Amino acid sequence: MLNDSVIEIAKQLINRRSVTPEDAGCQEAMGEFLGALGFDNETMVFEDTTNLWSRRGKEGPVFCFAGHTDVVPSGPESAWKTPPFTATEVDGYLHGRGAADMKGSLAAMLVATREFVNKYPDHKGSIAYLITSDEEGPFINGTTRVIDTLEARNEKIDWCIVGEPSSTDEVGDIVKNGRRGSLTGDLIVKGVQGHVAYPHLAKNPVHSAMAALDELAKSHWDNGNDFFPPTSFQISNIHAGTGAGNVIPGEMHVCFNFRFSTEVTDQILIERVTAILEAHELEYEIKWTFNGQPFLTDTGALLEATQGAIAAVKGTPTVLSTAGGTSDGRFIAPTGAQVIELGPVNATIHKIDECVKMSDLEQLADMYFGILERLLAK
Amino acid sequence: MLNDSVIEIAKQLINRRSVTPEDAGCQEAMGEFLGALGFDNETMVFEDTTNLWSRRGKEGPVFCFAGHTDVVPSGPESAWKTPPFTATEVDGYLHGRGAADMKGSLAAMLVATREFVNKYPDHKGSIAYLITSDEEGPFINGTTRVIDTLEARNEKIDWCIVGEPSSTDEVGDIVKNGRRGSLTGDLIVKGVQGHVAYPHLAKNPVHSAMAALDELAKSHWDNGNDFFPPTSFQISNIHAGTGAGNVIPGEMHVCFNFRFSTEVTDQILIERVTAILEAHELEYEIKWTFNGQPFLTDTGALLEATQGAIAAVKGTPTVLSTAGGTSDGRFIAPTGAQVIELGPVNATIHKIDECVKMSDLEQLADMYFGILERLLAK
Repeated sequence: MLNDSVIEIAKQLINRRSVTPEDAGCQEAMGEFLGALGFDNETMVFEDTTNLWSRRGKEGPVFCFAGHTDVVPSGPESAWKTPPFTATEVDGYLHGRGAADMKGSLAAMLVATREFVNKYPDHKGSIAYLITSDEEGPFINGTTRVIDTLEARNEKIDWCIVGEPSSTDEVGDIVKNGRRGSLTGDLIVKGVQGHVAYPHLAKNPVHSAMAALDELAKSHWDNGNDFFPPTSFQISNIHAGTGAGNVIPGEMHVCFNFRFSTEVTDQILIERVTAILEAHELEYEIKWTFNGQPFLTDTGALLEATQGAIAAVKGTPTVLSTAGGTSDGRFIAPTGAQVIELGPVNATIHKIDECVKMSDLEQLADMYFGILERLLAK
Repeated sequence: MLNDSVIEIAKQLINRRSVTPEDAGCQEAMGEFLGALGFDNETMVFEDTTNLWSRRGKEGPVFCFAGHTDVVPSGPESAWKTPPFTATEVDGYLHGRGAADMKGSLAAMLVATREFVNKYPDHKGSIAYLITSDEEGPFINGTTRVIDTLEARNEKIDWCIVGEPSSTDEVGDIVKNGRRGSLTGDLIVKGVQGHVAYPHLAKNPVHSAMAALDELAKSHWDNGNDFFPPTSFQISNIHAGTGAGNVIPGEMHVCFNFRFSTEVTDQILIERVTAILEAHELEYEIKWTFNGQPFLTDTGALLEATQGAIAAVKGTPTVLSTAGGTSDGRFIAPTGAQVIELGPVNATIHKIDECVKMSDLEQLADMYFGILERLLAK
């Protein structure tokens, strides 16, 4: 593999059927590649998940490439123009599940690393890889547990590039320099079941809860800031009733989600929701699931190096964004690391006929190389 | 059957497995009994439902006993202390499905009619029976279609006793002299489905609808009157969401029901609901199901005869009530008939081990006789 191109390495990874949480040998191949470049590999298996922590160098600062070898299922393979687990070149694009999310990025990282280590064998600090096989799954036994392990031994990442497909039209047009936080509430509003003909003997939880839910839906949580849109509250599910038209339901289930900016915290949101529910005198139970704090990398060496490297390759500036879903960056940023996501165009990810422009992958490798050079060249 | 007692006739009806819409020969047996007393029987079969219209006399006024031969399912027969379709005497009670709702009443009607006709063969006006086999079912092909047939030929009922189990502690303690109306709305609030991370691309129908539903739940529809409690609005079912916590639902389904007094009409309620939905600028579809106008018999010869007959048998006054669910009275009252429901204690209806106190059935026959005598004796 050592002398292969970005495209060849990407193909070798795509051809491995690593549907989450399977790794299917991808990390072993990556470790072999990195070991030959002087990296120390540490495989961390947690339950069904395989993780690779690989590092070259003992000193700080620590630059880390983060990513995942798992992919989402292909859906019906017969619906694909080319077999999803056989990487295929079509008109300048590489097709296959994971081509864009994110085996192409892994290949670009490896090639950039190889070029950099060959050019700067005595680079500053350390280069590391944090690779998991559960980013597309429940993200319980992946990056978060590797970070726990590193934190426990006080091993810190200073700068982290996550290879998630951040781009919209061409590689590098957008980087994600942060992500919103995510907080989910599962609310059960209690009432007393009864017959609609005898409402005085029942207590309708739907009626009790409407005003509180309306207040939640209309609440203004913050104004956002330069990097984040205002915090958003959305009810995703609401259910009450037995199906019968003459029965007052005994309880109502409501599931809602916050995507929140750095202007609030999960604790502030929980307190404000609780205050609204209490003010409406609801009888309720609530279960909170915290999916990640927001993070933001709005200044610093990593951001400068990334912007510089992209400009050098593309000749155009990149746009900073915090939009979209969550990523494993949320587990790395809380350790104090600067985190930026840079990867290929995300138009086809999780879809039938996922593909990536091959020249984009080559440019991505150049960008990754440029970042390494700006941060660690001696 | 002609010389049998109330209890024996009730047993013969209970032993027929007439689970709605089955009649299982009950009406044929009743028709035979009535035919022997000089009634003209007219069987009206509509779809799966058997109905009996039987009448003695050509003149008005027309007094009618109304009721049903069908029963609700027994549930697991092994859960019963006695077989549900084998009428069994236990400590002064008659056990079996339909004992209280309402084969016991039918037996009491027949015995009262036999005694009355024997005593007053040349009574005033006419005695009629309107019996259906779908009162416990969808009530589409039962009483409502018989009434349509009678109306089409201008055959009117002046006074109607419905044998529904109206009593609470002992027979005759309560009669229903009216029922609330019932109106159901099935509402679909439209939105635009999307990802919770991109709320600006979606429109959450749960959020859109909350204020309108809150206003509906808090609205004051009327004050009721001497005979009816205020009109009541209840949401029985509310559903939105795919189950996934990160998807904004595309629509929300809400089912609600009005039980309404004689102070409003279904049209007034529909107009008021529509105005609220429009005022909140909802995009919606709604399907209305009208289950029956309210009716009330608050004065008149039937009410006086019923109160007098009960007082004569029990020595205590009866209480007038319009509480509870709907009954087939709603189909008869709109023709202009006075309608009152008088039947046995309803504590065990629709339950395992349904039963009726045998002495109550005998007293009920005496009450029905007293009503006939007060209205039609010559």
